[in-house]
Amino acid sequence: MQNSILSRFTPKEPKFVDLLKQVSAISIEAASLLGEALKTKTQEERLDYFHKIKDKEHEADVIANQIFEALESCFITPFDREDISELSNRLDDVVDYINGSSKRMAIYNPYKVHPAIIKLSDLVIAGVRAIDKGINMLATLRSDKKALKEIVNSLHALENDADEVYEMAIREVFAQEKNAIELMKTKELLSELEKTTDAIEHVGKILKTIIVKYA
Amino acid sequence: MQNSILSRFTPKEPKFVDLLKQVSAISIEAASLLGEALKTKTQEERLDYFHKIKDKEHEADVIANQIFEALESCFITPFDREDISELSNRLDDVVDYINGSSKRMAIYNPYKVHPAIIKLSDLVIAGVRAIDKGINMLATLRSDKKALKEIVNSLHALENDADEVYEMAIREVFAQEKNAIELMKTKELLSELEKTTDAIEHVGKILKTIIVKYA
Amino acid sequence: MQNSILSRFTPKEPKFVDLLKQVSAISIEAASLLGEALKTKTQEERLDYFHKIKDKEHEADVIANQIFEALESCFITPFDREDISELSNRLDDVVDYINGSSKRMAIYNPYKVHPAIIKLSDLVIAGVRAIDKGINMLATLRSDKKALKEIVNSLHALENDADEVYEMAIREVFAQEKNAIELMKTKELLSELEKTTDAIEHVGKILKTIIVKYA
Repeated sequence: MQNSILSRFTPKEPKFVDLLKQVSAISIEAASLLGEALKTKTQEERLDYFHKIKDKEHEADVIANQIFEALESCFITPFDREDISELSNRLDDVVDYINGSSKRMAIYNPYKVHPAIIKLSDLVIAGVRAIDKGINMLATLRSDKKALKEIVNSLHALENDADEVYEMAIREVFAQEKNAIELMKTKELLSELEKTTDAIEHVGKILKTIIVKYA
Repeated sequence: MQNSILSRFTPKEPKFVDLLKQVSAISIEAASLLGEALKTKTQEERLDYFHKIKDKEHEADVIANQIFEALESCFITPFDREDISELSNRLDDVVDYINGSSKRMAIYNPYKVHPAIIKLSDLVIAGVRAIDKGINMLATLRSDKKALKEIVNSLHALENDADEVYEMAIREVFAQEKNAIELMKTKELLSELEKTTDAIEHVGKILKTIIVKYA
Repeated sequence: MQNSILSRFTPKEPKFVDLLKQVSAISIEAASLLGEALKTKTQEERLDYFHKIKDKEHEADVIANQIFEALESCFITPFDREDISELSNRLDDVVDYINGSSKRMAIYNPYKVHPAIIKLSDLVIAGVRAIDKGINMLATLRSDKKALKEIVNSLHALENDADEVYEMAIREVFAQEKNAIELMKTKELLSELEKTTDAIEHVGKILKTIIVKYA
């Protein structure tokens, strides 16, 4: 029933899916910390959260490196390796953008946190949870094909929602905020969060490619 | 005369080129709407155009999805699929940046529209038209190899011109505009348009890769 | 001892490594010019350096095009071509970001140059030198595998250092600079330099992929 390519994602080579699941779990932790960070009031707290999230980013890097090492040491074809590698890199990007959002919160230290910032971080949290479900389907790709496609679609929809939230917020702050520096901070924070949802959708696109090629 | 890879772009499998042509036609429509949007004066008109362009972006997404579905359902090798998929994705990026430029016009709602903004949108319109010519050569890749290479070169030159326009404009506004918020708006709008021309050149790079591999 | 894929990087086909070395050498020249540009005081000098660096960028483009032409004309498989092409493109990105940093220095023409700007350009110079060492190992990939992995790791570490420098500087200028336009200039310049180190790390990631596939 299974072709040799699919078998890369099956129990014979379980470690890649396991490692990807670990990165995915870290992304959930990082997104939750970000949600908390965005509700803080002082730069001290914000830097604290940033350092916690940065630690998560480093944990994700370590596992991405394990994926790299495992790919190097095991006998599979370069082509398969590339898909695993791509998924690992794009997942890593999500954690990087979560880290980037938290970084901007800490280093720009905005006076006010616009409600849209919280809304976007809620979408990020929902996104990484959906990705995690998707990653957990990789070992059972063929039977879960339909469900995985739904996740891919939901990640696309989530990114559209994030766009909407971002646009309304930018429109409002550009019309109302008269302090150029505070405006810049809010704009940059909204923008980085919106890019996080882009990165989440990008993981969806890789999952889509994996469906195209192997399911 | 033809190898099996080239045949993906020939009458035996015409649908991919047809679908890519459709996305390309949408990008021309979106770019023309953007040209009009940048000449408007009120936020109402700007939002109106933005919604029209966003509709175009959704149309492009729908076809990109049809390309994905078609790739999934037909018997061609993964390797070929990837090139079609890459071209489809990069074309989609162009429409996304056109949308992004129109979005910034609508949501930042600048007080003045710098002449360089119009110049850049003219380059975008020229770029998507050149891409469209290139896409129309894919089915006849070998006989049109030389002409396609010229298009690739013209897209590169166009991006250089856009850089020039962008640089002169930024230099001028940073020297003259004293209102930080208006400066930010002009800078962002110029920058998104310049990125649109980068995305246009990126399509050129994919066309270049397709020449390398199949022509 | 060598597989047919590795042989692309060996004396039988030396031109690709030679051409990549040329691009790498240009990136070193461009980075050194950038280091000097960032120490200038007048817009005239800054524009002068920008034009010199832009010339370097064009030189790199010409060689990237020779790589493209060489790939097109010689009998190697598309798969190998893609790795060479990817490395060439990512090296080109580094030169583009160096050019972009120099461009911002010239066209924003900041009143003060923050010390972190100089620190980041020192990291860029160190980065392109490390890449150059790595490129020089491609022809002897198997014997230099360990050394090449160390370079890949050093590029990753360098990017982390650049992050640190960037963050501290942004935090400081957002807390202290009250002129929104000068703040914007410093932020953009720091950001472009930080992205240059990201692009440098990206070359490291491609080298990593080449190790995975061929070493």
